[in-house]
This record gives sequence, structure tokens and C-alpha cells, in this order.
Amino acid sequence: MPSYAPPVRDIFFAMVEVAGLAEVAALPGCEDSAELAGPVLDEAAKLAAEVLAPLNPVGDREGCVLENGAVRTPTGFREAYARFVEGGWNGMPFDPEHGGQGLPWLLTTAVGEMWQAANMAFGLCPLLTQGTVELLSSHGSAEQKALYLPPLIEGVWTGTMNLTEPQAGSDLGALRSRAVPDGDAWKITGQKIFITHGEHDMAENIVHMVLARVPDAPAGPKGISLFIVPKFLPAADGRPGPRNDLRCVSLEHKLGIKASPTAVMSFGDGGGATGFLVGEANRGLEYMFTMMNNARLNVGLQGVAVAERAYQKARAYARERVQSRAPGTPGPATIIHHADVRRMLMTMKAETEAARALALLAARHLDVAKRHPDEAIRAHAQRQVDLLIPVVKAWCSEVGMATADTAIQVHGGMGFIEETGVAQHLRDARITAIYEGTNGIQAADLVGRKLLRDKGFAAREALASMRSDVQRAERDLPEIGARLAEGVAALEAATAWLLANAERDPHLPGAASTPYLRLFGTVAGGWMTTRAALAARAGAADDRFLAAKLVTARFYADHLLPRAGGYLAAVTAGPQAVMALAEDDF
Amino acid sequence: MPSYAPPVRDIFFAMVEVAGLAEVAALPGCEDSAELAGPVLDEAAKLAAEVLAPLNPVGDREGCVLENGAVRTPTGFREAYARFVEGGWNGMPFDPEHGGQGLPWLLTTAVGEMWQAANMAFGLCPLLTQGTVELLSSHGSAEQKALYLPPLIEGVWTGTMNLTEPQAGSDLGALRSRAVPDGDAWKITGQKIFITHGEHDMAENIVHMVLARVPDAPAGPKGISLFIVPKFLPAADGRPGPRNDLRCVSLEHKLGIKASPTAVMSFGDGGGATGFLVGEANRGLEYMFTMMNNARLNVGLQGVAVAERAYQKARAYARERVQSRAPGTPGPATIIHHADVRRMLMTMKAETEAARALALLAARHLDVAKRHPDEAIRAHAQRQVDLLIPVVKAWCSEVGMATADTAIQVHGGMGFIEETGVAQHLRDARITAIYEGTNGIQAADLVGRKLLRDKGFAAREALASMRSDVQRAERDLPEIGARLAEGVAALEAATAWLLANAERDPHLPGAASTPYLRLFGTVAGGWMTTRAALAARAGAADDRFLAAKLVTARFYADHLLPRAGGYLAAVTAGPQAVMALAEDDF
Repeated sequence: MPSYAPPVRDIFFAMVEVAGLAEVAALPGCEDSAELAGPVLDEAAKLAAEVLAPLNPVGDREGCVLENGAVRTPTGFREAYARFVEGGWNGMPFDPEHGGQGLPWLLTTAVGEMWQAANMAFGLCPLLTQGTVELLSSHGSAEQKALYLPPLIEGVWTGTMNLTEPQAGSDLGALRSRAVPDGDAWKITGQKIFITHGEHDMAENIVHMVLARVPDAPAGPKGISLFIVPKFLPAADGRPGPRNDLRCVSLEHKLGIKASPTAVMSFGDGGGATGFLVGEANRGLEYMFTMMNNARLNVGLQGVAVAERAYQKARAYARERVQSRAPGTPGPATIIHHADVRRMLMTMKAETEAARALALLAARHLDVAKRHPDEAIRAHAQRQVDLLIPVVKAWCSEVGMATADTAIQVHGGMGFIEETGVAQHLRDARITAIYEGTNGIQAADLVGRKLLRDKGFAAREALASMRSDVQRAERDLPEIGARLAEGVAALEAATAWLLANAERDPHLPGAASTPYLRLFGTVAGGWMTTRAALAARAGAADDRFLAAKLVTARFYADHLLPRAGGYLAAVTAGPQAVMALAEDDF
Repeated sequence: MPSYAPPVRDIFFAMVEVAGLAEVAALPGCEDSAELAGPVLDEAAKLAAEVLAPLNPVGDREGCVLENGAVRTPTGFREAYARFVEGGWNGMPFDPEHGGQGLPWLLTTAVGEMWQAANMAFGLCPLLTQGTVELLSSHGSAEQKALYLPPLIEGVWTGTMNLTEPQAGSDLGALRSRAVPDGDAWKITGQKIFITHGEHDMAENIVHMVLARVPDAPAGPKGISLFIVPKFLPAADGRPGPRNDLRCVSLEHKLGIKASPTAVMSFGDGGGATGFLVGEANRGLEYMFTMMNNARLNVGLQGVAVAERAYQKARAYARERVQSRAPGTPGPATIIHHADVRRMLMTMKAETEAARALALLAARHLDVAKRHPDEAIRAHAQRQVDLLIPVVKAWCSEVGMATADTAIQVHGGMGFIEETGVAQHLRDARITAIYEGTNGIQAADLVGRKLLRDKGFAAREALASMRSDVQRAERDLPEIGARLAEGVAALEAATAWLLANAERDPHLPGAASTPYLRLFGTVAGGWMTTRAALAARAGAADDRFLAAKLVTARFYADHLLPRAGGYLAAVTAGPQAVMALAEDDF
């Protein structure tokens, strides 16, 4: 029994039938993606299952070690990363001009699930590189692109994001790192924390993207600039040259993702690290936003990935562990025969499939927003991306944590023993609700920026899409359709209530934001499983894979969608009880 | 800022105003408990805060070490345990005839929260001893009581429960350890796993309570006998004598409670460990049930305890961490000013107080069931104990896990760093949903044994108690009363539905059991916060402690009670979608 069997058919089904691969394949430059999808998924599945997945417990056990300023990754990680680079996996979505493969985000995201499921700590490294590539592609000079993009896209160099400082977490406007001009370059000084893969031994160079303030910059978020600060300064031929004045001071001792070094980075201890300004000064935070949607999508995807892997582990244990007689069994039975274990497995399966489809739907909208020839269609897709991303990030990460937690429970006492391996998934998953903007920040973004700012325009578009599937379901799958209709009605009611009442009290949006996001995710998840069921109903009647989609959608509708009412009540309860206590009364 | 400040006033308030200390103080033998409660809580709070709480991170970091068959507990644990024994804390609830203090369970439980909050891994040891004392008090011979009870009650000896074997977890009927007669004693052979504090260095002797089969015992659960198997065989004078043939083979490497050694125990490698039969042969499982209610209450209490400690840690961080401006603040503010952080803190506070009161209510019923002079009142209280215990165990442990998880979230990135200390609470809490019968087993017990077996008699009694408080609330606190009425109505509907439909399908009770338990816990929790609010309303109007109880009840009513509808829907959805997939279709 392999530790992770990539669910290639499930992923492919969600791409084709729920997210809409055909629509993506109709976009300019994506013509071959429908044909490529199957073979690419199969090839990625091999690397994920055979190379990355077996290293997952190794990485958790060994962690990373900092010695004399160098970070040693766990046994096997260097070799695995070399295989990953060799396969060209790092460059999937990027511009062929700089060595990328120009594939759609839908396919990159589908493949990405397998990297994250196989080895989330490993998978983080290419995600950071991806962010670096996006930043430079959008805002770098021609010279910067020519110098940095090819090795980053190939993956022989990796990238990092240096945002957080001890006093500046969610509030980046408070950061203090400094940049002073030095000829054509800048001298950077400051300390950054929580730098994922800030130092490691898997690449020949590390390109740090660093936020810092230039002299006389305005206070707050509008005085922050973005710099390229490479570990080794590239020589004219593009090869890594002299060592820059930056170093890894320490590594964090974390709950999970232990194979991913989380560094405290110090810049300029020797007088100033050499940095290169990206774009214009004081626009650094604005630039960061250009990569935020993809980064947040990827964190949501990590939630899907951990959920899938934890589900597989629980399923395997439930099929092999014998305890007690179950109704209909003559003697002691494997625990999968017990209804409460079934309930856990069905919950895991249904939420994982719903979360996967939602992440892929967001990726499809990303592709349409970037590539569709019709500007109005691009704009619509971009609105849906912007609306869905906080939901994908936060709701899918919560699905990942809940599913990993349930997987422990299915294992009973063995779940608490580290050697069993299932506890790692919960420990790893726990970070996804925190980094790349905590889930509370996502909820604030959803309600403040995505719902209230456009007065519900994008939300009404999303609700209209849901409604059209509700109608199909009410006709073809009435039990499911009825439950989905109730869920969508709850989301509509919460949306309308927020739009009508948000200005009543300055704390109202904040108090309602998390229940609203959970309501949105829960209902959108039911929408996804319903779409899957509608497609499955149209397929071969004797295909058990398709028949299972109908059962899963029914389970979601009966057992999970009814949570919507509780969230709606919490939204419309308003902020009174939330804010009534004085600080000292807690 | 101490790491744990025992919430003495909260605990006392819940004892007096919600659980009913006066009713307990009216019981024979409990006359002084109302007077004693305050001073005893204060004294326990000192030991918990000053001695046990500071050792909590030490224990997590160092864990226990097995060397040459001996287990070394973490630095400071031996000394702390000696202080605990010196203070007489081990003997609180036990018979004064054998050195106990004869105090009610209500007070023992209230004090127990502080031990478990201060140091859950430490607190486990006395819990196991307590179970041993109960078993021997109920089923031991006069000679066994005279020999074992005094040192166990004093705490200089500790006890363990040796139930689980690798093939026999939830299904104890499957166990294989053997006992053969040997003069007046028995020779025990077999291997046991998951033995909490199975070997350690804090006591001069360890009394193992071991389940094993005698020759020709019937197969299954009715062929299991209970034996006393001491680490050192007591000499005639009661002092520990020769070493018995048993040993700790290994310690588990666990997700949490690392300072509590979880041993694999081997009995009889040298030919047979000497054991002494308790009561009659083949009645061991039945005897185990006599201590199960207290043991399960204590695990629920651990959930309350971890919740309280995690809440305190999150509250402290929210008061000191500055990030971003909040509505109404001129500049960057401590995060407690942000509504979403408030929502998290209020959820933690409300659920913790609800869970505490529910655990104390169960303890009060225990006292009444044991001591009330009127047999009918004793029987009623015992029915309420039996009904509430699975809810307290499972729901309060889920509150503990959820609260610890939310506490991490309040800490943002710092929550993921082990040195912060908050992640330990989640890792520790995770076991409470598993041991002493998984929460799935609790749900099966609630629906199968406690609801369906008596055709809803005890449940209707509990609902009648809730209804009477609903009426008071509808009169005096109408907003809260209206929500509680909806919650109680949902619980009534689910109860009636289960009673009417349970026999329709053999999988129906199992499929409905966990949502039913969560519904019960959620509604009972709202009942508890409402009782607290009704009492607070009658108190001094300018007492902010009391005013906060009203706000907390309102928050629970508005934000948490509405979850009831989702659980009701899941109960009444029936088992179809839960059981529809074939095993291979997962």
C-alpha cells in the first residue's frame, strides 16, 4: 500500500466536469491543454507518489538543521528537488520566452495538488519561487527579467518573500527594514522573520524579494518598496557571483512542515546587503498584491492536498482495522462497516472533493481572466477570482485541518502515536489557516473588499451561477437540489443583510466576516458537489466512480449543507454580543 | 504574567449558581462543603499556578525517558508530585476510613480542572490512581482494601488501567492476556499497550489493574477477569516487597501529553506476573464500568481545562499584540480591538464556561446519586449522570480541541512556533477525543444505551429541566430565551425522531449518533450559559463579573446555539447517504 496514491481520475473529473477544462482549452495559447492534461497528470502522479511522498515522514522526523549559516535539508530532499527541476515541473505556468511551458493555471493547480499532498513541506519551495517569478514578470525591468527569470523558472534558483518583521505581521505598513541608494543599487538592512525556505541547500542561488523603506518614504503602507536581494550576486554571465551581505540567523522550531526551513533572515549585518529596486519606489505593497491571488489559491490547494492524503490514510486504516461486530456482519468487522466511521469517511471525502473543485474553479477563472479575448469576459472572470480567492484560501484550509483531524480520530489510539504518521498531516495543515494572510484576514478581505466595495456586484454574479445549477439540480436531482436551494438562499440572505446593514456599526463587517466566509465556502462546496453529481448523472449508469459522485453530493447536501443556517444566524446576529465586553472583562 | 491563573471565581460561580452547590451541601456527609469550597479552591489554585503550571512546557520539551526498564519523568515532576501528595489532594473524594477526605465529587471535579489546566500530562497520573481506588473500593476484598487503599489514597502508590491490547482497542472482548491459578494468587501473562503512567519514578509502587482471561473463560466480553498486579508485591506489613514479573517494554512517541509516559507493558516474561483476582472471575468488564462514569467525566474535564488555559493564553496575546488600526482606535491597536479576534475570544470564553458548568452539573448529579437519602431522587440523579457522561466526555473534549485550535489562530504566525507554547495545548487536547472510549464510542453509548434503551425516559427528564429554564429565560432574558427555546426544540425533535425511527434501519443509530451528541452538547451548553445569566441577572447590577455572564450567554445564544439546526438535519437525514457506497468505492 503506497502512502499516497494520487487521485488522478478524481482530479481530472473535477477539472473537466466541474471547473470546465473545455472553456480553458478554448483560450488562446491553451489549445493543447485538454490533450495534455491526462498525460501530464499521470507523469506528475509518478513523481509525487514515488519520490516526494516517501520523503514526507523523513522530512518531519529530521527537519532542517542550521550549521555555520548553512541549512541542511532532510535526507533525500536535494535529490528529489533535482528530479523536480529535471522534470520541468517548476516552469509549468510561466512564459515560454523565459523557459516556461505556458500551461494554464487550471492544469498547474491540478498538478500542484499532488506535490502538496505528497510532501507539503517540499511543495512550499516551488510555491515561493512561483511568487517570485510572478512578481518579476509583472514588475521587473527587462534586464532583471533576463537575469533572474530563466534560472527561477527552471528552478535551479529559488525565490523567497521577505515581508514579515517581528512588529509587522498582518500589518505590513508597520515594517522598518531600510534601503539606502548605493550607485545603481541599494543597501538593505533589517531583520525579517518567518521566511519560508529563506536558506537551504537545494538550489545554487536564492533570490530574496524584500520589502523595505527608502529614505523619506511616506509612513505606512504607501512607503514600502520592493527589492531583489540575491544570496549570490549574479555575475554578468548570469552565474552566481559574490556572496551578498545577508544570512540566516536561526530556524524556527515549528508544529509542522518541519522539512521547510522557516528562517529569521538578517540583511546588512556587514554594512548593507546589495539590493535592486523592482519597479518604482514606494509601490512595493501594490506589487505584492499582483501575486497574492495565486499565492492564496495555492494555500487553499494545500488544504485540499492534506485533506486528500489524510482521507486516504484514514480509508486505508478503516479497511484494515478489525474491531467489534457491525450491523450485518457475523463477527468482528473492519471498522469501515461501522456507520460512525462511514460518516467520518464520507465527510472527509465530500469536503475534499468540494474543496478541490472550488480551487480548480478559481484556477479556471484565473486563466479566463488572463487570456480570454473578450474584455468583458476577462473582467467577469477577474471579479470571480477576486471574490473566490479568500474563500478558497480560508475554507479549503479549514477543510484540510478538519479532515486531518478526523483522520486522526478514525485511527483511534494509533492516531496519537507519531509513528503512525497521520498526526503529521494535522500539524502540517495547521499553518495553512495562518500564513499568506490569516483566515481572519481572508474573511475581512471577502466582506470588506470583495463584497461591500462593489456593493455585492461580484457576489450576485456568483449567486446567479449557483442559482442556474440549483435549477438543473431541482429538475434532475430533486433531493440534492432542494438542499442546495436552501443553502444558496441562506447565502443570498446573508449577502443582502450585510449589504443593507454594514454601515450601521463599524464593527459589524468584522464580527460577521468569518461566519460569512464559512457560509460562502459551505454553500459553494455544495454547489461543486452538485455540479459533479449533475455531470455524473449524465455519464454511464454502470460506472461506480460516477455513481459515487451522486452519493457524495447527496451526503454533502444532507449532512454538510445544513450548517448554512447556523452561519447565517451568526452573520445576522450582528456585532453587539461580540463587542459588548470591556477589554478587562475577558 | 503567570502562564495560568486559575479562574477561581468562575469555577466557584459555576459550582454555586449553575451546578448547585447548595443541593450537594444538603447531602449527608457533605454538610461542610459549602464552607470548604472557597478555601479549598484557593489552596489548590496556588499549587496549580505556582508548581504544576510552570512544569507544563518543561514536560512537553523533555518528555519521559525509558532506560534499563526505568522511566525518568521530566525535571521537577517528582518533586511536584511529592507536593501534591503532601497536600492530601489525592484523597479528596475517598472514604475517610482509608485515609480519604470524603469530599463531594462536585468539589473534587472543580479542583480537578485546575490540575488538568495547569499540567494535563501530570494530572493524568492521579486520575488513573483514582480509577484504581474506585475499582478496589467497590469490588476489592476487605484484605485488598486494607492493603492497597491507604497508599493509593495517600498517593504514595499510583494506579494504572491495563485494558488495551494491540488487537483489542474499543473492542475489549477481543483481549487475550491470560491468568492461571497459582495457589491463592494467579500468574498473569500478556502484553498491554497504551498504559498511561505504566512505569514512572514518582511513586514507591505502581498498582496495575489488569484485564485477563482465566482458563476456560467464555469467549468475548463475558470471559474477562480483573486482577491486581502490583509492581512490587506488598509484604505483610504493607511495604513494597519483591519485584513482580512485569516490565515496561517501550514508551510511545506521541503527539502530546509527552510528560505522561504511555507504556507498552509486558506481564510474565519470566514465567508469570503474580496477580490477585478482584471480585469474581469473568466479571472484569462489568467492574470496569463502575469507574467509567468518573473516568469519562474526568476526560471531559480535561477538555474544559485545556480550553481555559488556551483561552487565557490567547486573551493575553490579544491584549498585548499590536497590529493595524481598528474601528474607533486612532492608530495601530492591540488585536483585541478587532471584531474577528473578539469573536474568537468570545467563542472560546462562552464554550469553556458552558463546558465547565456541564461537567460540574454531572458531578453534582454523581453526588446526589451516591448520597441522597431518597431512593427515587438517587435514581433520577443516576439516570442524569448516565445520560450526561457521554456528552460531557465527548462534547467537552471537542470544546477543548476547538478552543486550543482557536488559541493558535489568535496568535497568528507565533502560534505555529513551539516556543510560544500554545500549540502544546492542541497537541495535548487531541487525546481527549480518543482515550477512555473514543468520542464515536461515546456517541454510540448516548444513543444506544442512554436514549433508546429506556425509550427516552432519561432524555425527557433532562429536556424537562431545560424547558423549565427556558421558561424563566423567556420571561427574564427574552432574546436568550428565544434562542434557547429553538435549541431545545431541535434537541426534542431529534430525540423524538430517533425514538420513532431507530428500528427502521440497523445503521440508523450509528449514522445519527455523533450529530445527536453534538446537538445535545451544544444545546446543553446553551442551557448552562443561560442558567449562569439568570443567576447573574439576580446579582448586583454593578458587578462586571456578573454583567459579563449576561453578555456571554447572549453570545452563546446568538452565535453558537444556531448550530443546532444543522445537527438536527444531519440526524434526521438518516443513514442512506452514509452507508450507500460500497467499501471499494471509497
